[in-house]
Amino acid sequence: MSTTALSEEAKARILNPELLSLVMPAAEAAAQIKSGMVLCTSGFGTGYPKAIPTSLAETKHATELTLINGAARGDRHMGALASAGILKKFCGFMYNEDARNICNAGALQFQDVHLGQLMTKVKNGVFGKVDFAIVECCKIKEDGSIVPTLSAGTTEAAIALADKVLLEVNLAVPAEVEGFHDFGVPSTKLVGSPAERYGVPYIKLDPKKIAGIVITNLPDTDLYYPDIAPIYNQIAGNVVKVLDGELAAGRLQPEFTFQSGMGVVANCVMVGLMNKNFKNLKMYTEVLSDQALYAVKEGIISEATTTALDITPLFFDDVFQNLDFYKEHMVLRPCDFTNGAPQIMAENLVAMNTAWEADIYGNVNSSHAMGSYMINGLGGSNDFARNAKLSIFTTPSTAKHGNISCIVPMVTHIDSTEHDVDVLVTEWGYADLRDKSPKERVNDVIDHCAHPDYREALHAYYDGAVAQCGACQTPHDLKNAFSWHVRYSETGSMKQE
Amino acid sequence: MSTTALSEEAKARILNPELLSLVMPAAEAAAQIKSGMVLCTSGFGTGYPKAIPTSLAETKHATELTLINGAARGDRHMGALASAGILKKFCGFMYNEDARNICNAGALQFQDVHLGQLMTKVKNGVFGKVDFAIVECCKIKEDGSIVPTLSAGTTEAAIALADKVLLEVNLAVPAEVEGFHDFGVPSTKLVGSPAERYGVPYIKLDPKKIAGIVITNLPDTDLYYPDIAPIYNQIAGNVVKVLDGELAAGRLQPEFTFQSGMGVVANCVMVGLMNKNFKNLKMYTEVLSDQALYAVKEGIISEATTTALDITPLFFDDVFQNLDFYKEHMVLRPCDFTNGAPQIMAENLVAMNTAWEADIYGNVNSSHAMGSYMINGLGGSNDFARNAKLSIFTTPSTAKHGNISCIVPMVTHIDSTEHDVDVLVTEWGYADLRDKSPKERVNDVIDHCAHPDYREALHAYYDGAVAQCGACQTPHDLKNAFSWHVRYSETGSMKQE
Repeated sequence: MSTTALSEEAKARILNPELLSLVMPAAEAAAQIKSGMVLCTSGFGTGYPKAIPTSLAETKHATELTLINGAARGDRHMGALASAGILKKFCGFMYNEDARNICNAGALQFQDVHLGQLMTKVKNGVFGKVDFAIVECCKIKEDGSIVPTLSAGTTEAAIALADKVLLEVNLAVPAEVEGFHDFGVPSTKLVGSPAERYGVPYIKLDPKKIAGIVITNLPDTDLYYPDIAPIYNQIAGNVVKVLDGELAAGRLQPEFTFQSGMGVVANCVMVGLMNKNFKNLKMYTEVLSDQALYAVKEGIISEATTTALDITPLFFDDVFQNLDFYKEHMVLRPCDFTNGAPQIMAENLVAMNTAWEADIYGNVNSSHAMGSYMINGLGGSNDFARNAKLSIFTTPSTAKHGNISCIVPMVTHIDSTEHDVDVLVTEWGYADLRDKSPKERVNDVIDHCAHPDYREALHAYYDGAVAQCGACQTPHDLKNAFSWHVRYSETGSMKQE
Repeated sequence: MSTTALSEEAKARILNPELLSLVMPAAEAAAQIKSGMVLCTSGFGTGYPKAIPTSLAETKHATELTLINGAARGDRHMGALASAGILKKFCGFMYNEDARNICNAGALQFQDVHLGQLMTKVKNGVFGKVDFAIVECCKIKEDGSIVPTLSAGTTEAAIALADKVLLEVNLAVPAEVEGFHDFGVPSTKLVGSPAERYGVPYIKLDPKKIAGIVITNLPDTDLYYPDIAPIYNQIAGNVVKVLDGELAAGRLQPEFTFQSGMGVVANCVMVGLMNKNFKNLKMYTEVLSDQALYAVKEGIISEATTTALDITPLFFDDVFQNLDFYKEHMVLRPCDFTNGAPQIMAENLVAMNTAWEADIYGNVNSSHAMGSYMINGLGGSNDFARNAKLSIFTTPSTAKHGNISCIVPMVTHIDSTEHDVDVLVTEWGYADLRDKSPKERVNDVIDHCAHPDYREALHAYYDGAVAQCGACQTPHDLKNAFSWHVRYSETGSMKQE
């Protein structure tokens, strides 16, 4: 593209004049990608490249691609690539609906990994050489370094590991975002306080690696939150009860540090914390939602470290209008750090994550329906649950209009084992599993968490298991452990006639 | 006890004369323990108190006790307390045969936790106040500080958290063991090299906390190794093949760092490493066996950090005769550190642990028979597997004379999820799961790891699952997922007629 055709606005985002010659249409950038290549893309909720993936999906000239990404679920990225049928494999957080359906249809191999370990695996050569990093940024500096948009995610590692880098400079994100991130920090560095900075607010990039620059103006619009049903507020209320109990017992300080997973329950918990007048909380977390940003504005959260803003268009405007405020209170760091064990352990963190189903002994399934179908990846849930001081999992007690009990005799897939689940919460109450053997947990899980419609049947399963194998460590009746799931598949309900 | 009755040898072990008045018979020390108390004991394989637990078991004056300990499985400790029926609850590593049987009979509540997190949970108040620490040592210093015997385990934290401390000074262990340990190091400190020291070789102990001192002369004799069947050497040979492959691919350096779990396969691997002329390896591990000490002597292992010597009487003599040599090459540190994520992550460790069964997708059961009966606790296996650079699990392909396949359609209990298992090894070969989706793993696990007698049936299970639910993320036929286990329970064999 001739540089004269570039808008002044675009030129102002590329501070190295020599790089202007690399500006090209998305199709020309995409054309460099060949079949069978391994791609690492930026983004994590927001901040993913949109023009090049869309172009790849349109031309379909390159097939059998491997895509590695943190948690960028957008339709113009993950959805487009998967729907085009050009992906052989995806490794990262599975959330996009199209991609999930294609995966469950067997046309896309998906490898689910703990997000905190994803780029370590890439670095260790598990997926072979990374051919291209495709990265969205808002600014390219004089030396080629880039300022990403509003995520950090896997981008720094992707750029370091890739042979070549394709950049999308997104004019919809102001260049003044610079200062939001903290990069170039040794991996073993512990952070003293969530908003402290130790490195530089940009990612070092050797200009020789840049194979193309595409100018875009594409706001992040993929995220929306579902309506909040009363049940979610009830769950959130019970989470707050758990926290109140910890405070009363002196096991938690009033200005505690926490992580909160994505989703509507997490957002309701945030509102619950506000209503209870918690103040000066700190977050080390994977993503920050609208509600979390609102909590920052209200002083409920004083500081936050996150790897991405997982926010709706409404809050993008707010962030762009109050950049200095948000930069003062929060930092975007690589997800190797946010989800890494050392800082989580050092913080005595309260972790709050979502289960799809849990069993009477406290094992949690975060990812699979009926043990077989991918719902969404496990993401960073176990990164936090495994290393937190207090690991809370939430789930509604039922799904599918009461036809599925989310508390089951045995979960059909395990993402967080009973060792990583401290407290289980539903709209009915909570079960504190911490000081209990598996058998000691059963009554609390059933009577405090399960839906009343299923309690009797759950007790009957346990009693039957004990009758069969004695009061051994973890009594199970293997003939019937999945009978509820089989019944659901056959009759449309887990309920017994 | 009058101090004149004390032998000169005993007096030489207690350097603070004021403490001599606290020397008492084991029964008098044990008498201070009351029903319902929470006890933390020292030891981890070796180094546990023997006289006071034996006395408690004899008098049975205190019942409903909670015992917290790292991995001290000895009959004079765990076995005696459990067999006496005075334990309500145990939290730590379950390995003692009597205790396991009592647990599976329902008369002892056992809570299995990741050993690396055990004392963090105690510190967080999960089990309430610790009434007594009961600790074996070889020396009490002028200020009350103690030099433990040949383990570190949970002892430092137990002493810090307990209201009162009972000490057993074991004359069978020379006082010159002093210098083997490294205590008083901040929990966030990373170690530069396994044998480097940063703290002090003793545990600080306020003499006011000491409630009694018992003099013993009781060598650690509980450990023995079973005979090595050819199959274990075949498994070890396949592990060495995996390591050779990593070296050849440049993913491992010739002087790599590793962890090795306990057990006969681990010991055979050590011999395999010696036979292949590996040199200057480093270990960060939970326990060191006879074979590991031999490897240190031979220069195969140049340095090791461990939390305990898990050795037989033969090697105790060798250690006592060569204390300076072993102190130079190894350090005993608390198991919070040895099993803690930060150092394991920093080391790019190769972790080698044992599975009881694994499934076609790579999930590992380390602890339960038929999903119900405790075999042994998960110990530190997942501490290492979860954070290692390369996580290897080994198992014989069959058990019970071929009537149990250790490779099954679905494991009945999960301690390490498919996300934490990189390579699965049996006597038949190995399956590298690292770059594979669940479905992509199936053929390798079946054809490289399962016993030939079960391969056809495993393929049939998978094909049946796909026929039923399509080639979704993790195809399972929930009606038949445990049919092999049920068949074993009913017929004594997993084999189909």
